[in-house]
Formats: sequence, structure tokens, C-alpha cells
Amino acid sequence: MNIAVAQSGGPTCAINASLVGVFRQALKTQGIDAVFGSKCGIEGIIGDDLIDLKRVIRTNEDMELLRQTPATVLGSCRYKLPECTYEDNNGAEIYDRIFGVLDKHRIEALFYIGGNDSMDTVQKLSEYATRIGSGIRFIGIPKTIDNDLPVTDHTPGFGSAVKYVCASVQEIIRDSSVYSFDSVTIIEVMGRHTGWLAASSCLLRANEEVAPHLIYLPESEFSTERFLEDVRAECAKHRAVIVAVSEGIELDISGVRSGVSDNFGHMYLSGVGRALEQLVRDEIGCKVRSIELNVMQRCSSHICSKTDIDEAEAIGAEAVKAAMRGETGVTMVFRRISDKPYVVTIESADTALMANKEKFVPREWINVAGNNISDEAIKYFLPLIRGEVDIKMRNGMPVHFKM
Amino acid sequence: MNIAVAQSGGPTCAINASLVGVFRQALKTQGIDAVFGSKCGIEGIIGDDLIDLKRVIRTNEDMELLRQTPATVLGSCRYKLPECTYEDNNGAEIYDRIFGVLDKHRIEALFYIGGNDSMDTVQKLSEYATRIGSGIRFIGIPKTIDNDLPVTDHTPGFGSAVKYVCASVQEIIRDSSVYSFDSVTIIEVMGRHTGWLAASSCLLRANEEVAPHLIYLPESEFSTERFLEDVRAECAKHRAVIVAVSEGIELDISGVRSGVSDNFGHMYLSGVGRALEQLVRDEIGCKVRSIELNVMQRCSSHICSKTDIDEAEAIGAEAVKAAMRGETGVTMVFRRISDKPYVVTIESADTALMANKEKFVPREWINVAGNNISDEAIKYFLPLIRGEVDIKMRNGMPVHFKM
Repeated sequence: MNIAVAQSGGPTCAINASLVGVFRQALKTQGIDAVFGSKCGIEGIIGDDLIDLKRVIRTNEDMELLRQTPATVLGSCRYKLPECTYEDNNGAEIYDRIFGVLDKHRIEALFYIGGNDSMDTVQKLSEYATRIGSGIRFIGIPKTIDNDLPVTDHTPGFGSAVKYVCASVQEIIRDSSVYSFDSVTIIEVMGRHTGWLAASSCLLRANEEVAPHLIYLPESEFSTERFLEDVRAECAKHRAVIVAVSEGIELDISGVRSGVSDNFGHMYLSGVGRALEQLVRDEIGCKVRSIELNVMQRCSSHICSKTDIDEAEAIGAEAVKAAMRGETGVTMVFRRISDKPYVVTIESADTALMANKEKFVPREWINVAGNNISDEAIKYFLPLIRGEVDIKMRNGMPVHFKM
Repeated sequence: MNIAVAQSGGPTCAINASLVGVFRQALKTQGIDAVFGSKCGIEGIIGDDLIDLKRVIRTNEDMELLRQTPATVLGSCRYKLPECTYEDNNGAEIYDRIFGVLDKHRIEALFYIGGNDSMDTVQKLSEYATRIGSGIRFIGIPKTIDNDLPVTDHTPGFGSAVKYVCASVQEIIRDSSVYSFDSVTIIEVMGRHTGWLAASSCLLRANEEVAPHLIYLPESEFSTERFLEDVRAECAKHRAVIVAVSEGIELDISGVRSGVSDNFGHMYLSGVGRALEQLVRDEIGCKVRSIELNVMQRCSSHICSKTDIDEAEAIGAEAVKAAMRGETGVTMVFRRISDKPYVVTIESADTALMANKEKFVPREWINVAGNNISDEAIKYFLPLIRGEVDIKMRNGMPVHFKM
């Protein structure tokens, strides 16, 4: 039998490690012949744009380089499959096309590495397979820096993003604290609907940092009035106040909301960090700077978490084992057995539990004022950033695997 | 005799390494007793706010941690000493105060780590010493991520900034290239008047990257019309176009210039990256994103250059030797003997050659179209980012030295 693997959704540092996990396990598995890579997620299957991975990933060194290469070596997509129910046969053409291409290449299992949107693809394809009596197995492998997938303890890619955020926030604390005058620094962290990544900045406390002094997540209602009170209170206590804020908080002021257009129809293009910077400047008047950690949060492989990369590879390998056991319509998940020592097992779970669903930061980790995170959360986050990958460098720069 | 050391101007990854250089050399030098650290640059001398560094930097491990800690452990300032000439005795009070504090603590040499503004302080103090017949020596130790100091081949702090910029731009290239549609990514790099840091992104070519496809510096006149033509031409050749741009380029369009206020008196707060992003969106219409590398360029010690940190320490040590030889009113500089093998010597130069002066990227490195950098520049930049510091980690995060 042949198998195929695809990568979908937003980039992370760990997606290629999961690809390596699938590939390495396939090499070890009797009965698996070709391992195809689908270009740009499901689009590669639809367009019959497949790569024989054994021809491009040739050595163990290639696999090691792939593990330290961010984003998706096979490309990605944001393609959403049409609904295809018994009642409504719309879109059957696209499913026929997909199954036609899979059959043509004798592909009996498709591994789909992605987030909650991508799990929708896995679920629809496995349902369609049941409907038409196809034996092709569809297995989801989670990834997202947002850590917002239900069922799994955490998602591959998240730990490396946390490690980058914590290292960078700590460095920004040093950078912001050099002058003798008062200042406020607002750091905007990714997370459209959930605040996992912003919350993880509480980890700096494990290394005796007091900052960030304030942490705001989309899980708590945000009030600009209370925000200004909070900042004023922290300014009274600290010379350099550091604020971490999720990009997804809903601002309750007009005109500064992200993406709001002005009277000329021009977009302001300001994220929440910039909007809050302007607010502090106008209302408090001290020196203020906002910093958007931007895509560096999801692609800074040079400071990836070894735990994350190793787990991402392991969960890819387990997906192959699940397929060989005949499972389909499942997504691989981590179950945490203990924090100390940190032990996780990898299991499979019904993809329907994850497709298009979100997991939020537990309410009990957020303080009553909605402006900070409890120490309880540190136990959860800490193991995820442990360890460093020995990054291969050339000319003083990390080496990336390129096809 | 006692000596003092101070740090001034904007943070870098290498200023604390130069402090270690001064400190370690002082420990080895017969005749030097106390080593004082002045809090917040010259402000610490003026305010008699000195720290006995032997009481706070106690072990070799402390020095190693200090070498990997970004920004300025002693704080910094942007203080400009008043003019104090024979003709105009204004400001003599502040000079009397400074020399009074230095004499009180038997400080016979002050080492001032800073950029071109800070060298102004060194020059004024050494001139004043001559005028009043004081034997106190004033030695400048350069630092700036901008690399804009004349005389010296390069500045400590620059190499680490280049290493961060190159690693991050390479990761952004991977991140930007995953989708099957056309996109433009604009990366805004620090450099108000000179484009050294943006130019250094050409180094990625040494690792077989084609991007950045376009590089704009303040040294060339910028035309939005030509910029749009350039971007259109690159879009015809590449799916994911990457542009590196110095924050200091002068935009020739109104309304989007950084810091321009709108009709309501609100500042747009957009840097050039964001302004160019808007321009591409309006005029070309493809997917476009701008990324500001922001202060992470100057404080990301977790990926500092070993060459840079070692040189920063060495130049601090040489400053102590120069003072012991009786030199004053000088700034330590690197002279490059050869690129391959990379050999630099450390010498002293008249501070007047550097104070308030700038060095620009050579015109011959910039192509005729003013939108890219020649391979010639690679030879210059490459040695500066070589080598990695073995960063001490705790709980998965770099450890910083704190007083």
C-alpha cells in the first residue's frame, strides 16, 4: 500500500517534524511502499500534485534539517471542503476527484497535519469514505500555535511558540528597563479567539521575572477603563511596566479597533497593541511602545522547544501506527499523565470532537480582575518549552531543508 | 587608582559583554582597585549613584551570564552634556559636579560604552579635563546595532543584530511561502539614517536564499512609483515576494509618512513598513503583510553572534589597557586586516572623529536601481555573525544576569 501526507493551515515550527514522524515510521513499516507528499494541503490531492517523498528526503541529515525548518515544506492551504450529506449531494464532484486521485496512486491512508479547520477536512473525508464504502483511512495530526484544539492536552507547535514568546518577552523586559524614566511596553501576542500564548508569558515567573505585570486574554471581557486603571496602578509600582495582550481581545472603544476604516475608507490597520499604545499615550501620557511579535511567534525555529519538536515527530509516527491498526476518522492527541515528571501518552480520538471546535484557557487560571494568570498555569506550560534542539548552522545562520 | 564604567544610548546584545571586558581586565591589572558602575550612563556620575561592581559581579559564572544578557545592566541615558567652551562658561556647574564626584571616589579613568551621541560625552569630558588640568582619562567603547560609527570597521552589537535579522528573515521567507497564491511581505528593519542592518539581509544569499528580492536603504533616494514597479516586476517572477526596508527611508507620499497626523490630529503611527503595505494593497491588490522586527533586533541575545560578543568583551579589555597607557579622548576601534581569514585588530582613535558623526553604507554596494545590495557586501558582513554562544538556560528559557 501507499500513503500520503499533507500539511494545512497556518505555519508553525513543528509541522515538518510531524511530517518526518510519518515518513520515518512509514520507512519502518512493512507493507507501506510509497509515501506521497501532497502539495498545498488537500489542493495537491485535488490537483493530483503529489511528490514521492523518498526521492526528496533521502538521508537522515535531510530529516534532521526538516525537523529544524519552520512552516510547511509541502506548502499549505485554507481550503474548506463543501458539505456533502446524504440529503445534499452538492460538491460530490470534488470528493469523487479526491478519491479518484487517491485510488489512482493506491493511497490507502491520508495523514492530514493541521488545526481545527483542517480536522474538518479529515472528518468529511472519513465520512465520505464510509458512505461510498472506501477503505481509505484518514488520520488527523494536530498542529497549531494557538493550542485551541479540544481533547488533546496541547498541540504540536505550541511549545515552540511559547518558548519564543517567553525568550522574547524576557529580552524586551531587559530592553525596556534601561532608562530612568517611566514607560509602558505593550506586547501583542497571537491568538484570535483564545489566549493560550499570551497566558504562557506567566512562565517568566519561573525564572524570577516579575513582568509581564498585566496579561489580557480574549477569555475575559476587556474594558479600556479598567485597563487604564490597571496600567496606572502598575506604573505606581514599577518604572517599566510590561503588558502582554492577545491580539484577539475585543476593544470597547470605537475608532481604534483593528481593521476599522476611517472616513476616507482607509483601514487604520492597527492591531490591539497599537490601539492600546495610543490609548496610554492619550490618557496617561508616559513613554509607551507597542510591539507585535507577529509571525516570528510561529516560525522562529532557531529557538524551538526540543520537547515540542520531539513530540511532533512522535505524534506523526503514532498516526501511522493508528492507520495500520485500521483506524480512520481519528485525530492523534496527547494525554498528560503527570506534570512532574512530565509524562504524556499519544492516543487517538474521534475527529468530530475537534473539527471546527475551540478550547479556551480555563477560567480558574485567570484572576478575578481579568488582568493576570495564576501560578497554577505555570505547571501546565513549563514542560512544553523544555530542551533545545541542536540547530545545524551554516555561515552563522540556521540551515533550512528546501525541496 | 579606581576606575568607572557607564553604558549609554540604545540597548544592544553586546554592551554588557564590553562591561565584562572592562571588569575582567581591571581585575587582572595591577594598580586598579575599585571598579565602579555608574547607573544610567553619565547620570549616575552626576547624581553620585555608583555601584562597586566587585560586590555584584562575584563569580566567573556571573560574568558569563552578563555576556548573554541584553541591554544595559547599569541602565542607560540619552543625556547630552552642555557645550562648555573657553568663550562660554555655561554648564560649567555640571562639569564641576562630574569631576567632583570622580575625584571624590579617586576615579582616574571613565569608560563610556555608547554610540555616536555618547562619544560626544567622551569628547567633551576629555576636553574639559585638559582645560582644568585633570589627569582623569576618558575612553569611549563603541556600541550600536546601527553600525554607523566612522573609523571603526564595525561596531559591537551590530553582528548580533545582523544574526537575528538574517535568522528571522529566513524564517519569514519560509512562513510567507506556504500558500499557492501571490503575496508580498515587507520587513521593516531598524536604521534611522543608515541602512547597514537592512543591507545585511543580503547575507541570506550565502545560504542559497534568493530573497529578500528587494532591499531599500536610506542611502538611496526612494520613489514610491519605482517601488511599485519593482514589486510588480518581482511578483511576475516569484510567488512570495520578500522586501527588506530600512525604517529610515524617506517616503515621497503624503499621509502615510511615519508620524504624520490625520485631519483629526490623530497620529497614524505607521512606520514605513505599514505605509508600504497599504500602498501595495491599494495599488497592486495582492495579499500583503508588513512585519516590524522592532526592538527584538537589538535585544535577542538568545541568538547573539559569538564573534560579536567575544569582540565586545575584547574591545572593553583593550580600553582598560589604553587608559593604563595614559590615553584619553580616544575611542577604541576595530581595524579589519583581512576578510578570509577574518582578522581584526583593536586600536584607539581620536574620539572627535566619531562624536556626532555617521558612516553610511558604501554607494558601490548599492545597485544602480537602488533596490538591492551587491555580493561584495557579503564578504564584509559574513564574519560578523559567525559562531553561537552556548546560552545557559533554566526552565527552557535563557538566564539573565540581574543586579
